[in-house]
Amino acid sequence: MPNESEIIARLRKRIRVNTQVMLGVGDDGAVIKPPSGKDLIASCDLMVEGVHFRTDWTSPQLLGHKALAVNLSDVAAMGGIPKFAMMSIALPHWCTSEFIDGLFDGIFELANATGVSIIGGDTSGSPHSLFIDVSVIGECGTGKAITRGGANAGDRIYVSGELGASALGLSLLEGGFRLDESQDASNPKRKAVLKHLAPEPQLRLGGVIGEESLATAMIDISDGLSTDLWHILDESGVGAVIHAASIPVAECVLATASSAPGIDALSLALHGGEEYELLFTARPENHERVIAVAETLGASITAIGDIVPEKDLNLERTGAMESLQRSGYEHLI
Amino acid sequence: MPNESEIIARLRKRIRVNTQVMLGVGDDGAVIKPPSGKDLIASCDLMVEGVHFRTDWTSPQLLGHKALAVNLSDVAAMGGIPKFAMMSIALPHWCTSEFIDGLFDGIFELANATGVSIIGGDTSGSPHSLFIDVSVIGECGTGKAITRGGANAGDRIYVSGELGASALGLSLLEGGFRLDESQDASNPKRKAVLKHLAPEPQLRLGGVIGEESLATAMIDISDGLSTDLWHILDESGVGAVIHAASIPVAECVLATASSAPGIDALSLALHGGEEYELLFTARPENHERVIAVAETLGASITAIGDIVPEKDLNLERTGAMESLQRSGYEHLI
Repeated sequence: MPNESEIIARLRKRIRVNTQVMLGVGDDGAVIKPPSGKDLIASCDLMVEGVHFRTDWTSPQLLGHKALAVNLSDVAAMGGIPKFAMMSIALPHWCTSEFIDGLFDGIFELANATGVSIIGGDTSGSPHSLFIDVSVIGECGTGKAITRGGANAGDRIYVSGELGASALGLSLLEGGFRLDESQDASNPKRKAVLKHLAPEPQLRLGGVIGEESLATAMIDISDGLSTDLWHILDESGVGAVIHAASIPVAECVLATASSAPGIDALSLALHGGEEYELLFTARPENHERVIAVAETLGASITAIGDIVPEKDLNLERTGAMESLQRSGYEHLI
Repeated sequence: MPNESEIIARLRKRIRVNTQVMLGVGDDGAVIKPPSGKDLIASCDLMVEGVHFRTDWTSPQLLGHKALAVNLSDVAAMGGIPKFAMMSIALPHWCTSEFIDGLFDGIFELANATGVSIIGGDTSGSPHSLFIDVSVIGECGTGKAITRGGANAGDRIYVSGELGASALGLSLLEGGFRLDESQDASNPKRKAVLKHLAPEPQLRLGGVIGEESLATAMIDISDGLSTDLWHILDESGVGAVIHAASIPVAECVLATASSAPGIDALSLALHGGEEYELLFTARPENHERVIAVAETLGASITAIGDIVPEKDLNLERTGAMESLQRSGYEHLI
C-alpha cells in the first residue's frame, strides 16, 4: 500500500476545481467562496466493507463512483446542486496502488461529469475493513430546499426512473452472479447488478425541481419506496394511497422475474433499497409542469398515487387496499 | 448495539443549533445560511480504531472529544471559526448504548462549548473496527484564510502552548500506563496522557490571528513541530532556523524526563505529533501585536526562531547548527 503522502500526491494530480474554490486539497482546510443569494446543503454518507459492499462483488471504479453518487443524490433530494465534496478513506493493507487509482478513477469521473470539486479528505490505514466516507456541500436558492416535511393531502406522489433493479442486483450478487466483460449490455441480470453497484443520482432532475419549487416534499430512495415514502408521511403528518399498477417496475426485473418464479417484481420495486431515484410530492395543479420537466430532461417520472389526510400508507391493487408498514432496508449485515 | 434509528433519535435529542442552521439532522441533507462577507473553510479528519486510538486506552467521552477537536483545530489553523460539523460513525457489534452515549457526550460537550452545530452524520455497523470521521465547516473574513504558503524570509516563528506531552502520553500508554480516577490531577504522566487523549484545539487564538491577519502562514501541530514546520517551509519556498533553548517543552515532560533517563524531552517537543497547538509565522514588526494577543487571551505563545531564504531547517543548540529532516509522525500501525 502506498503511504499517505503518495496517496495525497496521486489525488492532487487529478483535481480540477471550480472558480468558487479558493484553496483546495493540501492545507489544513479548503477555502471556498459561498455563493451569494443561496443556501448551503450539507450531507455525508458512509460506506463500510462487509456492510455496504464487498470488494469481490464490485470493482474499485464502481465503488468510487457509488461512494460519491449516494452523497450527490442526497443533495439532489433536497432540490439542490452539489458543488464540493470531501472524502475520508481508511485503506486496509491489501489495497494496492492500482486499487486506489481505480477508486479515484470512479470518484473523479463522476465528480468531473457533475461539476463537483473535490476539496479535501483524509486517508488512513485500516486494520481490517475498507471504509469510505464522503461529505458533500451543495447549494440551492434561498429558502428553496425541499424537505421531507412539506407534503399535503391532495398532493400527487411521483417517482423518477424504474424500481426494483438494485434490490434484484443485490440478490443476484448474493446468489453468486458476478459482472463479467463477456456479458451483453442488454443482459437483464447485468443491468440489475449495475444499478446496484453504480447508481446514477438524479442530479439534473433534483436541481430543476428545486429551482422551480415544483415539489412539496422530496427524498431519494435509499431505504426502499415504501420506507422512504413513510419518511415523507411521518415528517409531513399525512398518509398516502399508491397504486400497484402505477409502480414503474424496471424492465430488467420483469425480464428476470418472468423466468424465475421466486422473484416478486412488484415487491422488489416497492421495498428494494439503494435505488437513488427521487420520490416527491407535488400539488395537483403542477402536474403538467412536472410532466414538462420530465420531457425537457428526457427523464422518466411516474405518478404513483396521492397524499391523503389519514396517517397510513395503503397500496391499492386491483381495487383492494393493503396497508404497507415501515419495513426498513437492511444492508448486508 | 442499538439500531440506526435509535442512534439517530439519541443524537437528535442532544442537538442545539445556531441561527444559521435552517434544517438540521433528520432529512437528506442539512440546510445552512452562509454568512455574508465570509469565506467558508472545510476540512475532515478520520479516526480509526487500532490506527489512531485503542478503546482500552481511552474512554468513549475522550474519544468523542478528540474526534471533533482535531477537526476544529484544522479550522483554527486556517485562522477561521468552526461553525458546523457532521460525523460518520461505523460501530462494531460490541458498542453498547452506554458507549455510544459516552461518545456523544464527548462530541456534544465540545460542540456546545465552542458554538459548533452538529448538522448531520451517518451511522453504520462495522464488521471489525470503530471508525469516526468528522467533517467541519467554518468561516473566516473574505480572503483572510491563512495558508501554509505565506511565510517570508525575516518572519518570526511562533508556537502556542507547550510541546512534547502528547507524544510522551502515547509512549506511556504503549508502556502500560492507564488513566485512573485515583491519580492526582497534577500527576505529570496523567497530564501527558490527557494531552494525547483529549487535546484542546486553539480556537480563540486561531480565530483572532485570522481576524487580525497577524500570521503569514499557519498550521496546527499534528505531525510534530519539525514535520509541520517543514510543511510551511515547503509550501512557502523558504527555510528556517529554530533555537533549542526557545522550544517550550511541557512541564509534565520535563518532570517525567528528570526521573527517566531514556526520555529525551527536547526530542519529544521537536518531533512528537498530535499536539494540536498552532505553529505560525508573522512579520517581525508584528511581534508586539502577537504578544498582546497572547496576553489578552491568556494564551502562551513562544517565538522559537526565524524564517530564512535558504530552504533548510536548522536547529541551533548552544551555538551549533544541526539540520532537521522531515521525519513524519507515525500513528499506531
